[in-house]
Amino acid sequence: MAPPPAPDVLISEVGPRDGLQSVKATMSTAHKRAWISALHAAGLREIEVASFVPAKLLPQMADAAEVVRHALTLPGLTVMALVPNLRGAEAALAAGVHKLTIPVSASAAHSLANVRKTREEMIAEVRSIVALRNERAPQVHIEAGISTAFGCTIQGPVPEDEVVWMAEQVVAAGVDESGLSDTTGMANPAQVRRLFKRLFAAIGSKTGAAHMHNTRGLGLANCLAAWDVGVRTFDSSQGGLGGCPYAPGASGNVVTEDLVFMFEAMGLRTGVDIGKLIEARAALKVGLPGEPVYGMTPEAGLPVGFSQGAAHV
Amino acid sequence: MAPPPAPDVLISEVGPRDGLQSVKATMSTAHKRAWISALHAAGLREIEVASFVPAKLLPQMADAAEVVRHALTLPGLTVMALVPNLRGAEAALAAGVHKLTIPVSASAAHSLANVRKTREEMIAEVRSIVALRNERAPQVHIEAGISTAFGCTIQGPVPEDEVVWMAEQVVAAGVDESGLSDTTGMANPAQVRRLFKRLFAAIGSKTGAAHMHNTRGLGLANCLAAWDVGVRTFDSSQGGLGGCPYAPGASGNVVTEDLVFMFEAMGLRTGVDIGKLIEARAALKVGLPGEPVYGMTPEAGLPVGFSQGAAHV
Repeated sequence: MAPPPAPDVLISEVGPRDGLQSVKATMSTAHKRAWISALHAAGLREIEVASFVPAKLLPQMADAAEVVRHALTLPGLTVMALVPNLRGAEAALAAGVHKLTIPVSASAAHSLANVRKTREEMIAEVRSIVALRNERAPQVHIEAGISTAFGCTIQGPVPEDEVVWMAEQVVAAGVDESGLSDTTGMANPAQVRRLFKRLFAAIGSKTGAAHMHNTRGLGLANCLAAWDVGVRTFDSSQGGLGGCPYAPGASGNVVTEDLVFMFEAMGLRTGVDIGKLIEARAALKVGLPGEPVYGMTPEAGLPVGFSQGAAHV
Repeated sequence: MAPPPAPDVLISEVGPRDGLQSVKATMSTAHKRAWISALHAAGLREIEVASFVPAKLLPQMADAAEVVRHALTLPGLTVMALVPNLRGAEAALAAGVHKLTIPVSASAAHSLANVRKTREEMIAEVRSIVALRNERAPQVHIEAGISTAFGCTIQGPVPEDEVVWMAEQVVAAGVDESGLSDTTGMANPAQVRRLFKRLFAAIGSKTGAAHMHNTRGLGLANCLAAWDVGVRTFDSSQGGLGGCPYAPGASGNVVTEDLVFMFEAMGLRTGVDIGKLIEARAALKVGLPGEPVYGMTPEAGLPVGFSQGAAHV
């Protein structure tokens, strides 16, 4: 049997890490396993399953190694984990992840607040993580996600030159790709196009994912803008999990269900089965009772006459 | 004093018509007046204030003439009303509106369901309305909004050729502009670009507004797509008023507040003051107690360092 065609767009599901660490409750390990399996069954082929951070800081992630162990059993899945520092990277590599993602901030103020390091110190940390990877697990892929690339709630606007500079620095430090994150929900489509164009010019094919937030409703428009200028990997979370504390009722992350619907409706292949993806919400809901789960497409249902993979009028 | 520069984008507020006729409650005439005044005070310069239809069909619109009379007192405002037929047009012209909008369906099935006429009969009605306008009030502008242009919940996909044909027919019948409506929330950005490009090719500068719905979360992405190919007028409603009956909790119309935020953040002038627009929500809420009012930007607030009219990093 011939393998399925490569997708046009890679949806990188971040709910089990970014989503779960943003909520108060802790999902049990068994529920995490079931949810990740359901996401995989829907066709997702890259999932950020955990972060390797001290359990006293983020008790929701205390079972990271165990969750990774389960995810590694799922065929064809790229198992990704977030690591903020060398110690986290050691633990993640020991657990056997396929891909590390390191958060670095474009905003000087956010860097200190988020990882307690200056940007220069963080670049040095990236260099150490790359060296460790080269020594212990050279096949592992490393991505640096540039936080606050479109603005910062602490310092306000972030100069684009500093965003591009940061990307150049982490690529020089040896990462395989660097994407841009709208951590604060401040991005607009014109800015997204401008900044990703500059990123492609600066680091070429090492340009990574667009990680957009829906804080002000622009999440999908910003993803479309990023697609237009060549971005092909998009972070999102099922049900928009990862609420934004200053926007009650407003989700933070782009909702995977709506993002997949947008691209599939445009005739682009994501490899994800929307019906099964909507079914996977049950595993999220049972594992986090009472937590709001967003998404317009699941509420409205698919349009009459809609079929995935068909060319749509 | 020099007049303010012309906006880059015209936001056509449809809440007082499209929104109010979709909800069960009837807003009082006094509350409608106050809300329309608040929308005007925020800088909106085109408002669809009423529809001229039999009061027994739509009791929410029974005071159309009185509402128009008030709207005509607001300086610089283009007062628009929806008319489904010649009789409605007579009443609207007698009331003194500046602009008529006529709904015509691209879908044969929807045409029968919505206006109880075939598409050909509706084109004949448009011709009669144009003749009446030419005789009684030649300065009045006529727009035909093509419903179900991106798909129909009754018949499913709508052939693009039929959408373009409909636009050509209404332009031949004498309307000043024809826009496209995603009545059912089925549009995607690729389709929006394709279809509006064809519309510009077919009817040139008579291409009118994009009327998008947010049923599946793609409202702003579709507006962005329409902007990209040259559309400069966008319909939306404050608070997303005009709920979609088959999508509980999901708004139908694009939310004006989020749409204005998107364009202004992109550095485009809408002429609308977002702060005052958010204040206008109070007039809507007091006039329709208990009705859900949507919008991500009002909930999240404007970003740190955001200022309207400035170039944004």
